[in-house]
Amino acid sequence: MTDTDIQFDKSGTLRHFLTVEGLPRDILISILDSAETFLGLGQREIKKVPLLQGKTVVNLFFEPSTRTRTTFEIAAKRLSADVITLETSRMSTTKGETILDTLNTLEAMHTDMFVIRDSFSGAAHLISTHVPAHVSIINAGDGRHAHPTQAMLDAFTIRRHKGDFSNLRVAIIGDILHSRVARSQIHALNILGVPEIRVIAPQTLLPNQIKRLGVHPYYDIEKGLDGVDVIIVLRLQLERMEGQLIPSDREYFRFYGLTPERLSGARPDALIMHPGPINRGLEIASSVADGEQSVILEQVTNGIAVRMAIMATLMGRQSPSPREAD
Amino acid sequence: MTDTDIQFDKSGTLRHFLTVEGLPRDILISILDSAETFLGLGQREIKKVPLLQGKTVVNLFFEPSTRTRTTFEIAAKRLSADVITLETSRMSTTKGETILDTLNTLEAMHTDMFVIRDSFSGAAHLISTHVPAHVSIINAGDGRHAHPTQAMLDAFTIRRHKGDFSNLRVAIIGDILHSRVARSQIHALNILGVPEIRVIAPQTLLPNQIKRLGVHPYYDIEKGLDGVDVIIVLRLQLERMEGQLIPSDREYFRFYGLTPERLSGARPDALIMHPGPINRGLEIASSVADGEQSVILEQVTNGIAVRMAIMATLMGRQSPSPREAD
Amino acid sequence: MTDTDIQFDKSGTLRHFLTVEGLPRDILISILDSAETFLGLGQREIKKVPLLQGKTVVNLFFEPSTRTRTTFEIAAKRLSADVITLETSRMSTTKGETILDTLNTLEAMHTDMFVIRDSFSGAAHLISTHVPAHVSIINAGDGRHAHPTQAMLDAFTIRRHKGDFSNLRVAIIGDILHSRVARSQIHALNILGVPEIRVIAPQTLLPNQIKRLGVHPYYDIEKGLDGVDVIIVLRLQLERMEGQLIPSDREYFRFYGLTPERLSGARPDALIMHPGPINRGLEIASSVADGEQSVILEQVTNGIAVRMAIMATLMGRQSPSPREAD
Repeated sequence: MTDTDIQFDKSGTLRHFLTVEGLPRDILISILDSAETFLGLGQREIKKVPLLQGKTVVNLFFEPSTRTRTTFEIAAKRLSADVITLETSRMSTTKGETILDTLNTLEAMHTDMFVIRDSFSGAAHLISTHVPAHVSIINAGDGRHAHPTQAMLDAFTIRRHKGDFSNLRVAIIGDILHSRVARSQIHALNILGVPEIRVIAPQTLLPNQIKRLGVHPYYDIEKGLDGVDVIIVLRLQLERMEGQLIPSDREYFRFYGLTPERLSGARPDALIMHPGPINRGLEIASSVADGEQSVILEQVTNGIAVRMAIMATLMGRQSPSPREAD
Repeated sequence: MTDTDIQFDKSGTLRHFLTVEGLPRDILISILDSAETFLGLGQREIKKVPLLQGKTVVNLFFEPSTRTRTTFEIAAKRLSADVITLETSRMSTTKGETILDTLNTLEAMHTDMFVIRDSFSGAAHLISTHVPAHVSIINAGDGRHAHPTQAMLDAFTIRRHKGDFSNLRVAIIGDILHSRVARSQIHALNILGVPEIRVIAPQTLLPNQIKRLGVHPYYDIEKGLDGVDVIIVLRLQLERMEGQLIPSDREYFRFYGLTPERLSGARPDALIMHPGPINRGLEIASSVADGEQSVILEQVTNGIAVRMAIMATLMGRQSPSPREAD
Repeated sequence: MTDTDIQFDKSGTLRHFLTVEGLPRDILISILDSAETFLGLGQREIKKVPLLQGKTVVNLFFEPSTRTRTTFEIAAKRLSADVITLETSRMSTTKGETILDTLNTLEAMHTDMFVIRDSFSGAAHLISTHVPAHVSIINAGDGRHAHPTQAMLDAFTIRRHKGDFSNLRVAIIGDILHSRVARSQIHALNILGVPEIRVIAPQTLLPNQIKRLGVHPYYDIEKGLDGVDVIIVLRLQLERMEGQLIPSDREYFRFYGLTPERLSGARPDALIMHPGPINRGLEIASSVADGEQSVILEQVTNGIAVRMAIMATLMGRQSPSPREAD
């Protein structure tokens, strides 16, 4: 069974959100459309809707994360769910009790949805195979594998500015090798019909088989940015590198930092995106991060709407009523 | 004043839930009956009732606990209470400020209920003598003394499977000496009319005066399990032992671990229970924990219903309205 | 632009609550009057009002605090807001991401209000200059600068007992030099018309220019307490002193601890106040802290009402609807 298959229930409805890889285009579009309606909510006096009232959502973060955790928490609360957030290290759960025991225990509390982040690639997938039929899993980042809600909010942000995907050149700059964000973005943009995706990185930070993903690698940032409509700058995750992959912070910025000069090679209306948190002066110059073309904060705002849309989509599956049996 | 007396207000209504010791049988039965109605709620689309709307419940955990804390938090939220959770060490509260000062401060915030866990036996009792008349205390585990809500959820689980208590043989295996869970279970099962309660442990883990509690001690697990209807396996809390009480983990499992072979001596429909989290391969074999007779995860589910019932019982006392004066 | 100006929006309505310094008397009175209505709520069966329903309040505590954080959390929940609490160290936010980036990110989640505590004097002020027009900031304590909600709850407590401020002698005892609480209290009481404010401290704990604040310094506690109506005892914050400022704990209590003997020099109906948490036997004798004249716990209760009043005042500004643009 592939990741894609496992995301659907027996009636063919989307049940989990583990990866965008292999999802049909119309499902992605439907989530983006749904997110549009939730986006307006954030502007309203009362930002709540009762779609998940009486549901229990557990945020299970085995990797620390303020930004993603908080947006999921706000998204669930604005849908009127009860939210339990557990930030825990893997270590503590492995003291005798396995991670599946922890999961089973939480599931026995009649949890309706788990939002899971883990440093282990495949964690959300593994867990999704062990929960009962009424429970949905959302992958909030697993190791180097996938971060599908980030990819969806990025696609959403691009569509709001560019209208559609069919004529775009998108460049992703940075540590493609270690980035679950990049992997998910590439899958999402391919599915949504972006004709040209470029990845820009030093050779040490590019997977060997990168072309298989349908992207064009560039080692030279000036060439890579030439004429692009969207620039996604990845966070340089120093803690994930073994030191030898890049010579130094300063060297990295010198060769791959997004500066105003380099930006000038892109289209004048090119969007600047970044999943955050940004390292100013490392992968991006402050003036670019704060400049007119930057939509970095808008990505955060859109992230709540997109996560609400995904949660509502998965939970909508259950209506009109869960099975009483078992 | 005994523990039992202190649990009632002047009109004779249950106000605190500190221990099951000395409580009348009809109160335990009434809580179990009430929990039945809350159990159905967990299966419903909207799992909330407004019974504690506008009430403030403070979870005050001086000992870390994910499982118990989370179920109390979910229970309170499903009753529509506002929940504040404070996980804190005793150390920090004793910097100048006494624990009673901390309590008084929280109480001054018009808290309606405290759920308290502490490593000090008698903590919840002590606190209950210092709070104003409208405040209720629930003991979520105090030292080696009591864990009454655990005992009630265990009794509830037994009743759902066995119908009633009047013909049962129940065996509790493990560290009886240090276990607040075992103490509370023994009291609850005695009150509810279980005719035969056995405790199975090495001599070093059995209190000297254990027979006074109305139980039958066994040092031999095979003999102890012979013909029983319910097997409660306690968690071996290695951190609470001084090392010399058991020779080693492997030795313990060899002599007291619940294996399929040992289980075969019990009645074929014997329930396997455990308060969790389980140490697989230490006090219980994985195949037993995951086997057909195991109701370990059901205990978790039932725990929420039972805790909702206890909270609702204590708070129901206050209606129609709290006293305005002081 | 002064602190005072920055607290108002363009229409002259109170938008932030950063300091009481320079605020007009009628605004303070209006908050105190509003708090009276919220105080009754704490006594009611259902302690909630829907004034902030659908609003998102973020408690951003860069300094640890159980008491203040919990009262703000309860206050926001009783106003029906969704509350996100982030307790974080400055260190973690400065790893590449600046504090303003963190703020901007949280703001992009359509947060309506930030409650901010930081060890840096001016933190809340600085942040208030960087948030969009619909966002309000409440200062929950910034370095040695201000703690305006504490001062308001103290003023509220005084008014409830003394009726008005026009004939009072108020003495503040303790570490005036390091105390944001004392600074805010002095400003509030001056604005509210207290004719005589005394500060009592060893010379090492009094700012040089203390008289400029319109207070009378006393080094002798007996003289300072003579005939006063209100005694505010500050917490001795040992962690903030460099050791040489007071000779020892015992010396401090001997010269400046509030004992029953010293209390006898004040008016017989003098109130005893303390922002908490108290150091028993250090700045205050237990018998005084727990005595009949003490209103220390009442301050906690009042704190929730006053914080609700301030939150409701700032948010009331936005009705009937926030600006859609930007």
